[in-house]
Amino acid sequence: MNATFRDSIDALAAGYRPGLTLDQAFYCDADVFEREVERLFTRDWLYAGHVSQLPEPGCHLVYDIAGESVIVSRDQEGALHAMVNVCRHRGSRICAEPFGKAQRLVCPYHGWTYALDGALVRARGMPPEFDLAGHRLHRLALEEFHGMVFVSFAERPSAFDTARSELDALLAPFDLTGTRVAAQRSYPVEANWKLVLENFEECYHCAPAHPEFARSHSIKSPPGSYPALWEALAERGKGAGTCTGVVKAPDWLAEPDGPFYYYSRYPLFDGYATGSEDGRPLAPLLGRVRAFDGGASDGQMGLLCYWLIYSDHCVIYRFTPRDVNHTDMDIVWLVRSDAEEGRDYDLERLVWLWHVTTEADKLIIERNQQGVRSRYYRPGPYAPMEWASRQFVEWYLLRMGRNGSVATPAGR
Amino acid sequence: MNATFRDSIDALAAGYRPGLTLDQAFYCDADVFEREVERLFTRDWLYAGHVSQLPEPGCHLVYDIAGESVIVSRDQEGALHAMVNVCRHRGSRICAEPFGKAQRLVCPYHGWTYALDGALVRARGMPPEFDLAGHRLHRLALEEFHGMVFVSFAERPSAFDTARSELDALLAPFDLTGTRVAAQRSYPVEANWKLVLENFEECYHCAPAHPEFARSHSIKSPPGSYPALWEALAERGKGAGTCTGVVKAPDWLAEPDGPFYYYSRYPLFDGYATGSEDGRPLAPLLGRVRAFDGGASDGQMGLLCYWLIYSDHCVIYRFTPRDVNHTDMDIVWLVRSDAEEGRDYDLERLVWLWHVTTEADKLIIERNQQGVRSRYYRPGPYAPMEWASRQFVEWYLLRMGRNGSVATPAGR
Amino acid sequence: MNATFRDSIDALAAGYRPGLTLDQAFYCDADVFEREVERLFTRDWLYAGHVSQLPEPGCHLVYDIAGESVIVSRDQEGALHAMVNVCRHRGSRICAEPFGKAQRLVCPYHGWTYALDGALVRARGMPPEFDLAGHRLHRLALEEFHGMVFVSFAERPSAFDTARSELDALLAPFDLTGTRVAAQRSYPVEANWKLVLENFEECYHCAPAHPEFARSHSIKSPPGSYPALWEALAERGKGAGTCTGVVKAPDWLAEPDGPFYYYSRYPLFDGYATGSEDGRPLAPLLGRVRAFDGGASDGQMGLLCYWLIYSDHCVIYRFTPRDVNHTDMDIVWLVRSDAEEGRDYDLERLVWLWHVTTEADKLIIERNQQGVRSRYYRPGPYAPMEWASRQFVEWYLLRMGRNGSVATPAGR
Repeated sequence: MNATFRDSIDALAAGYRPGLTLDQAFYCDADVFEREVERLFTRDWLYAGHVSQLPEPGCHLVYDIAGESVIVSRDQEGALHAMVNVCRHRGSRICAEPFGKAQRLVCPYHGWTYALDGALVRARGMPPEFDLAGHRLHRLALEEFHGMVFVSFAERPSAFDTARSELDALLAPFDLTGTRVAAQRSYPVEANWKLVLENFEECYHCAPAHPEFARSHSIKSPPGSYPALWEALAERGKGAGTCTGVVKAPDWLAEPDGPFYYYSRYPLFDGYATGSEDGRPLAPLLGRVRAFDGGASDGQMGLLCYWLIYSDHCVIYRFTPRDVNHTDMDIVWLVRSDAEEGRDYDLERLVWLWHVTTEADKLIIERNQQGVRSRYYRPGPYAPMEWASRQFVEWYLLRMGRNGSVATPAGR
Repeated sequence: MNATFRDSIDALAAGYRPGLTLDQAFYCDADVFEREVERLFTRDWLYAGHVSQLPEPGCHLVYDIAGESVIVSRDQEGALHAMVNVCRHRGSRICAEPFGKAQRLVCPYHGWTYALDGALVRARGMPPEFDLAGHRLHRLALEEFHGMVFVSFAERPSAFDTARSELDALLAPFDLTGTRVAAQRSYPVEANWKLVLENFEECYHCAPAHPEFARSHSIKSPPGSYPALWEALAERGKGAGTCTGVVKAPDWLAEPDGPFYYYSRYPLFDGYATGSEDGRPLAPLLGRVRAFDGGASDGQMGLLCYWLIYSDHCVIYRFTPRDVNHTDMDIVWLVRSDAEEGRDYDLERLVWLWHVTTEADKLIIERNQQGVRSRYYRPGPYAPMEWASRQFVEWYLLRMGRNGSVATPAGR
Repeated sequence: MNATFRDSIDALAAGYRPGLTLDQAFYCDADVFEREVERLFTRDWLYAGHVSQLPEPGCHLVYDIAGESVIVSRDQEGALHAMVNVCRHRGSRICAEPFGKAQRLVCPYHGWTYALDGALVRARGMPPEFDLAGHRLHRLALEEFHGMVFVSFAERPSAFDTARSELDALLAPFDLTGTRVAAQRSYPVEANWKLVLENFEECYHCAPAHPEFARSHSIKSPPGSYPALWEALAERGKGAGTCTGVVKAPDWLAEPDGPFYYYSRYPLFDGYATGSEDGRPLAPLLGRVRAFDGGASDGQMGLLCYWLIYSDHCVIYRFTPRDVNHTDMDIVWLVRSDAEEGRDYDLERLVWLWHVTTEADKLIIERNQQGVRSRYYRPGPYAPMEWASRQFVEWYLLRMGRNGSVATPAGR
């Protein structure tokens, strides 16, 4: 990125008019994406996978984002490690498959062999004086949070302490650590990742675009629309063991580099026990939940990971920017670890809602990107129901503009 | 486009040697294409569709060019409107399908609702003080000309007056307004749009490359080759009600920003009543034409729209630049409005000639582009029969070079 | 390429640390590729095809590299000619198919007609004063070497004299001129051409990555590993008429612009008469070879052409850079001219080894490229067995850096 363009990103950020969508360049320019990699993706926490995908020592998975590839492995003692998937010999990817199990990580090119924590333990044919210790895989920060494995390219990423103290009690009843991945699907979108996030952050579009979702989920309407539903949910929650509290990270706009989290449980419409087509349950109750409370929890941890917790299953949404114009929407569906397909749940019924909703979003978002590329696109006004998208954009500009945090990410 | 490259386009244009093809950069560089969008495509008239494709109030069609998308609609009073297909809320495309019919244009993302003339009439959930009138769709200029709908991104596009006064009488016998689209096909070409136009503008290649066309159309040979055919056509035209006159817009090179039109009727070879494989008629006589005169009219209106009028059908050619290296050739075949497929014409016979000819041109043009990309390509000499391609290139350089018209197009 | 980037290539080359792989930019930047075209591909000798592919007068073939296209033809007197596949009229490719036979080369666009040596002999419809002689096809240098046809874009390419004097006697027993192409396959790789060459230049990866090759070819191990095998090969060679001598071009690092060649015959493991799955012969003995000596000859001629000569067949490897990130690996298998498929050899047995090995290399190299694109890639140490890859890289930097030869290639 040359100096001229760097100034122009700063100028664009400085010229932003509050309440409007971003300028075209933020959705279309490769140089903007390059700065996003530097200032966002290599600095924040990123959801890499679920502990149930690494059940035993030697298990590993691969997580790719914005041209980078990360290996997460479980060692013999059960500890998790994250490292860059680039051999220190000639730069080959070491693990090519999304999941694997082995006692050593062996580069398929020349056989350089790494321990499960990334230490180089053998490099056949190298001279005796070769420095094994100086050629370990680049390590990344890792945190496990309620069964979700987060990694960060940052040298000193923000702490999870506040998030844990605020969210642990709210998440505890669902016991997400005691779940497993029942299904996993990926939806590639030909659009900038911010259009994908802005879509996910608002339910202004739910009524016109998602009839399947809108008929069961009350957040299709403005906040405060259904006081009786909220009261009934709080009441039922007492018996079920859930909680309707809303939790937000300390003000993002005041602390744009701080941790990023959110939690809120809201009511489904009457007749819906969970996010199913017919309203009936989809799977056994999660964790210590004692009854269907007719609620759904919206949550977020880090910039690109969201979740939705029903009484009987959890949906994790991960957004993965590929380049300025391509983003993957990856979904995993979690059920209790001991739930058995066929006996306890039907896979197609389980995935139905978020499959049809995500397919619809893919179309909507791609048309948004097409229009934003027009010479006639002008930033437009967010509706009141789009408050979260607007807040995201304002936070984004704080991180991206001249006053954004300027510490160099690890590895640059 | 940076200042350096702008200068270099000017220098390339200034260095052009008359009689030769363009320098490589004009066929290959994305920055040249960007200037073409500014100076050509957003300034001239563009063929968007035919009135028969918008038969009733509420009908609309979508026309895409160079990353832009235009909606043309017919309102309740029957008037036609053109507007940019970009919602004023968050920039989504509003119409995704090429044709549609509705009393309102509703954005599928959040339901913002526009009247058929582009006025915003409803934006659900916006605050009461929201300015509907300030968020109408961006309007474009529109002209209907003998059933063909032209649009322009320019704020003050050139007038149609001269074209109408010169062409109305020549076109009247064919009554193109009283035709309808019988077939429509699109031929995407991996080549710069100027190579596509240069191909269409000359018949030097007809003999070697188009045996189907060359055996029936006399313009495969140099002008003046068949004086007896021309005399016979003029004679037959008197009875048929057609005219062999040639009409050109006022000199393009003297007025490069002026309107762009052309008309000439020339003879087919003996035994050919129309552009059919066997020479026999393909459809009922057009409009007020009284007999097959054995002629074909070549015409042009605007930079990218050409037509060919036989006694019984009309072929409209539209060239649509996508990017510097991709162009669509879109063809529509028009017959009398009251002609019925099966009874009055056979679809495969009707489209045969221009389908095989365009498939052949696609191959030829793509190989031309491949060669032009070579480090060894040098501008080569136009043959005398390529006079129209040469004239196009000279006009093009007047518009593109330093002395090109510099008014800012609408919407920038 | 602008001045800034030119300096930065020089700086990168100057900063190279011996013994390590190249900096990321050399594998990923389009500007580097552009300089490679100027300094390498348009200056060195390139393998275009085999004489058996041009058996008769009028035969021609097409060879494409880095966006350029070359015609090689055999004229009425049997002489070979190489010329650029770009018509001097408007720049079209003349030959579109890989192989053809005709007494004239006729451009399919407008019929301009060239003799088999590239002279323009007819340009229909051009004015009488048109200068035919001034519009011949651009000629390229051509050399036939043991049946292999090499071409060069350079005006004064390096001489073949030294190579002939050193290699003629070694190659003579195999009579490669008396062979013909039995099979030809292409393996496109999504990777930079240097990663492809570095892969081919070393056998450090053979043991882990190529079990099929490693079980029969002794160069999977460090030099000097099998002295008894080498002695036995030399002994058997006396009877068979082959030779184990090693020949290298004069030091590449001292004369980086000099000719590029290499030859070495090494032993297969016991039980392998040739490079077959089961060790048994694949085809009749080549040329004047009198017995299976259990050897294989590695060879190279020019930057991008390698060969492997067994006692009964020869494999020619050609690497063809397409752009900075795409390379084709083209393989031809040669057998005696009089060998007949079905009777003398089985096609699938013949191609087996280098088909499976090349498929494996394609995967390996693509994963290497993916890792090299990472922000965490750092140049890594070559192993001793990778001496040839290391030498290639050092030679490459001499040609690419500030002190690289600066003569302008032909045609610029």
